[in-house]
Amino acid sequence: MTSLALEKLINEFNKLPGIGKKSATRIAFHLINSSMEEIKTLTSVITEAKAHIKHCSICSNLTEQDICNICSDLSRRTDILCIVEDCRDIISLEKTATFRGKYHVLNGKIAPLKGITPDKLNIESLLIRIASEPITEVIIAINPDLEGETTTLYLNKLIKNFNIKVTRIASGLPMGGNLEYADTATISQSLNGRHEIY
Amino acid sequence: MTSLALEKLINEFNKLPGIGKKSATRIAFHLINSSMEEIKTLTSVITEAKAHIKHCSICSNLTEQDICNICSDLSRRTDILCIVEDCRDIISLEKTATFRGKYHVLNGKIAPLKGITPDKLNIESLLIRIASEPITEVIIAINPDLEGETTTLYLNKLIKNFNIKVTRIASGLPMGGNLEYADTATISQSLNGRHEIY
Repeated sequence: MTSLALEKLINEFNKLPGIGKKSATRIAFHLINSSMEEIKTLTSVITEAKAHIKHCSICSNLTEQDICNICSDLSRRTDILCIVEDCRDIISLEKTATFRGKYHVLNGKIAPLKGITPDKLNIESLLIRIASEPITEVIIAINPDLEGETTTLYLNKLIKNFNIKVTRIASGLPMGGNLEYADTATISQSLNGRHEIY
Repeated sequence: MTSLALEKLINEFNKLPGIGKKSATRIAFHLINSSMEEIKTLTSVITEAKAHIKHCSICSNLTEQDICNICSDLSRRTDILCIVEDCRDIISLEKTATFRGKYHVLNGKIAPLKGITPDKLNIESLLIRIASEPITEVIIAINPDLEGETTTLYLNKLIKNFNIKVTRIASGLPMGGNLEYADTATISQSLNGRHEIY
C-alpha cells in the first residue's frame, strides 16, 4: 500500500460488520474521490448519531428523546405488548403495519454459554410494565432458534403469573417457501402450528 | 424509524458503494453500540485520509507525499513502465510481487459514450514520461473489456512512435478455470494467445 492513511482507512472500514477487505478498499477509494463536503456530512452524521441516540426509558428502543415515538404515540394500543430481542426487529415488524400495540426490547436472549443470563436482559423492566400497564396480551416475537425458544419458555413462566395471555409468533414455511427445500425443524413447526380453514 | 439521526446514519452508509439498505442498517446499529473512542477513531481516520491523500505528481498513484513510494523507490527498474486504469490495480499487481518496474495511472479508460475522451485521461503526462525516462518497454495492464481494448489500441499507436516495445497483459482462462464454463470471448483470447511449450 502506498499510503498509510489509506491503509488505516481501509482497516477502519474492515472492522464494520459485513465489510470485508475488498469492500473496505472499494469504500476507501470512493471516499477519497468524494468531495470534502460529503466527507464532512458523513463524519458529522456518525458523530451526531452516536451523541444523540439513546435507549427509550420505557421500551429500550433507540431514540433521540427520553421516550421513543412508539411509546409516546397515543393512537397505539396499550393493551398489547410485543417482546423483541433487538431494536432492529421493531423496524422489521413496523414495516408490516400489522401490529399497532407497544414494544419491549429485551436486548438479547438467554444464552448461558455466552454469559447472557436473564439478569443481563431487560426482563425486570418488562415485569414492572406488565404489572403497571393495562396489558392483556403479550406477544413474544423473539427469533425462533434454540436460545429464542429457551427465552420464550422462561418469559412465559414469569408472565403467566400475572394472568395474562401470552402468545408466540408463528413458525413454519416462509411465504413462497417450498416443502422440498425446508429443514425438518421448520416443517415440524408448520405441522404442529397448523390451523383449521373455515 | 424511531430516530431521525439513525435514519440519517443509515442513509449516509447506504450511499457508499456495495452497501445496501440492510448492510447500512447493520453498520448503523453496530456504530451506535460502539464506544465513543471507536467512533472518534473512525471519523478522524476518514477526515485525515481525505485531507492528506493526493495523487503522486509522477505516476498519479495515491500517496501522502508529493511523490509516491513506488516512484521514489531506487531499487525498482526504471526501464519498464506498467500502465493501469486505476490506483486499485496497482495494489492488485503489487500483491503478486512479479513486477518490479514503475507504474502510470491513467485514471480511467477511453469511453466516449460516458464522455471520457483521451484528453480526460493522464495520457499527456504518460507521453512526457516516455520521452524523458529511460523506458524500453511499456506494459498495458488495462482491464480486458471493450473500452479497455479501445484504450490499448489508442495508447499502442501513440507509444509506438517512440520506438518502444509495447506489451499487453495476457487474456485467457483464469487459473483454476474451466473451458466448459468460460465465455466464448475468453476462450478465443486463450486460443489466440497460445504459446509454445518448450
